[in-house]
Amino acid sequence: MSEEYKVTPWEVTGEVDYEKLIREFGVSPLTDDLVSRFRKIFGELPSEISRKLFYAHRDFDVILDKVESGKKIYLYTGRGPSGPMHIGHLFPFVFTKKLQTMLNTELFIQITSDEKFLYHRNIGREEIFEYTIDNIKDILALGFDYKNTYIIDDLRAIQYLYQIAVSVAKRVTFSTAKAVFGFTHDTNIGMIFFMSIQAAPSFIGYFINDKYEGCLIPAAIDQDPYWRVTRDIATKIKLPKPAQIHGKLLPGLKKGIKMSASIPETSIYLSDSPEAVKKKIWEAYTGGQPTIELQRKYGGDPDKCVVFSYFKFLFEDSDDKLRERYEACKSGELTCGECKRELIDRINKFLEEHRRRKEKITDEYIEKYLINNKVDLENHIRQYKLLR
Amino acid sequence: MSEEYKVTPWEVTGEVDYEKLIREFGVSPLTDDLVSRFRKIFGELPSEISRKLFYAHRDFDVILDKVESGKKIYLYTGRGPSGPMHIGHLFPFVFTKKLQTMLNTELFIQITSDEKFLYHRNIGREEIFEYTIDNIKDILALGFDYKNTYIIDDLRAIQYLYQIAVSVAKRVTFSTAKAVFGFTHDTNIGMIFFMSIQAAPSFIGYFINDKYEGCLIPAAIDQDPYWRVTRDIATKIKLPKPAQIHGKLLPGLKKGIKMSASIPETSIYLSDSPEAVKKKIWEAYTGGQPTIELQRKYGGDPDKCVVFSYFKFLFEDSDDKLRERYEACKSGELTCGECKRELIDRINKFLEEHRRRKEKITDEYIEKYLINNKVDLENHIRQYKLLR
Repeated sequence: MSEEYKVTPWEVTGEVDYEKLIREFGVSPLTDDLVSRFRKIFGELPSEISRKLFYAHRDFDVILDKVESGKKIYLYTGRGPSGPMHIGHLFPFVFTKKLQTMLNTELFIQITSDEKFLYHRNIGREEIFEYTIDNIKDILALGFDYKNTYIIDDLRAIQYLYQIAVSVAKRVTFSTAKAVFGFTHDTNIGMIFFMSIQAAPSFIGYFINDKYEGCLIPAAIDQDPYWRVTRDIATKIKLPKPAQIHGKLLPGLKKGIKMSASIPETSIYLSDSPEAVKKKIWEAYTGGQPTIELQRKYGGDPDKCVVFSYFKFLFEDSDDKLRERYEACKSGELTCGECKRELIDRINKFLEEHRRRKEKITDEYIEKYLINNKVDLENHIRQYKLLR
Repeated sequence: MSEEYKVTPWEVTGEVDYEKLIREFGVSPLTDDLVSRFRKIFGELPSEISRKLFYAHRDFDVILDKVESGKKIYLYTGRGPSGPMHIGHLFPFVFTKKLQTMLNTELFIQITSDEKFLYHRNIGREEIFEYTIDNIKDILALGFDYKNTYIIDDLRAIQYLYQIAVSVAKRVTFSTAKAVFGFTHDTNIGMIFFMSIQAAPSFIGYFINDKYEGCLIPAAIDQDPYWRVTRDIATKIKLPKPAQIHGKLLPGLKKGIKMSASIPETSIYLSDSPEAVKKKIWEAYTGGQPTIELQRKYGGDPDKCVVFSYFKFLFEDSDDKLRERYEACKSGELTCGECKRELIDRINKFLEEHRRRKEKITDEYIEKYLINNKVDLENHIRQYKLLR
């Protein structure tokens, strides 16, 4: 019954079997025990955890140990600016913001403008520059505080990453990169090197503030190959292994296709008009029956419904109400039309507010977040004198 | 009769057959015709050209065309700071300084601290930092003017190179890097990427001053593989191909061995004491006969003599006097002992003066040369907006 799927940092296709992915990637499931510890430590559970939308991890238990014993850890996540952002791209940032508040700590957001330039044969530098600014505005519209948030735009802030990158790169052979990322002899040498750049923020916190004793990376699970190599190198350069908490990907509106910039109908863009949202959701794949009569009789299958996923990922804060919706669908009480209308309404309200917040974010405002303006370079580089 | 030799950017062993190297590398010989043009254009001939110590090239004729038609070209050369510098390392810089004066242009000196860190398993960052400063002092002791000389220390100035580097790296596959540099699956991904960093100064001039219409790289011929790839990429990113003029390597004091940091007896270090110089030259390989009697009878072979090479490369300004020494050796009039004594004297005088000049070069003085202090980064990065 399960379809073919593929999950790499650059491509996700097919219907992802998340349980299988845990075994394939060699990560650990987020157990009920860990969820309980999370609630105990922080006194609350973000919906992304209670619903296991962030569902797998590497060393998340170690992070909880550290937090419990009063040690400081920082957060790191990122975004590849290869196009405008859709709602699925925003999801890990929503969770990251909650984590940042709970941990009361600093966050490093890497914008991998170099990677996107290197990867896409047909995307030019000017487009990357524009998407970088636009994406940063979308991210900052979520309300990150410049006082504890650093934006690292690789193409403009490489000087903050390169010291660590060479220390990582020195310990990664082409064989390893090939095995982990599936590179071939036709891969360009920039892509081959790039993992060193993505690894760098996993360690940068220690060179900015020596209070840190750990780094936690909340990100979509497709990025796991990067962390796998980074963790191996951490030991070799005598720095803490970064821990990860892995998110699921918001499913595409069409069955079995990840939201993708190349297929705009599969996703709700943050710039989509109310009409576009209406049309896309109306045409989305659901778990419902072909007719209202059959729906009333047999009920729908919310577990296979994209519309339900949207509620679950982003558009229903209350776990209780989500459960009610789930039951109402299964019992046939709720029809796909009603459900879609409600979702369209919520998405459009969210997008309207989002765009209002985004409009206020000027180029000058972004400057306050850039690591270039927050960390004195000369002093910073001196910190790396002893890095192996 | 010819021995095995090997010339790569990281290793030169055996007695180099420079004529064969021209064919192997696919470069052009510096013809008498080009030498005449050089004299005609500049009104003088540096000894490195008249003696064909810089003896091969790529597009040097194109550079002469441009100079003749009044177009501005800039210079680029470099140094890998993996240890203290010896006299052979200084040789291309001596020539570069003459070229800079004749062309009245700007020079970019790249210090490949990243490469040396990536290449040498056992050299740590702190050592690289120290060698970087020490090597820069040796180079600047030759008298480069800070007003038209930029030093780019990769580990501290990567932000000035990375924009170009990603544009280069995007067009170089692992296959190409493997074929040109002999990389294997065990090569680290930093070394694989590094050619993009060494390529960058070949183009940086155009983004600093739009008056430039060409770049000339005077360097030892072992660096040619870098330029071969860089020139291919130039076409793809619509920038002028950098031209090269290739120097021979000052032979090691022991037969058939390049001066090497790992074998200190093969070279005269810039820090060598007068006694050390005396001992090394006294023990150097010559083209002389085993006894004075045989020398008087058959004469020596200056073409196979390291001591004569030292005069030819660095310690005899006058072409006439060099020719006299050559003839006197061949005729048996001059003995190895006399020749060595004279060389020891000249080297020690040079080193004494060099170290006096070097002592005056403080860390503050170096700052005036660093690209970091000469070029405003934010404005500079903006120049790359349209780079493909």
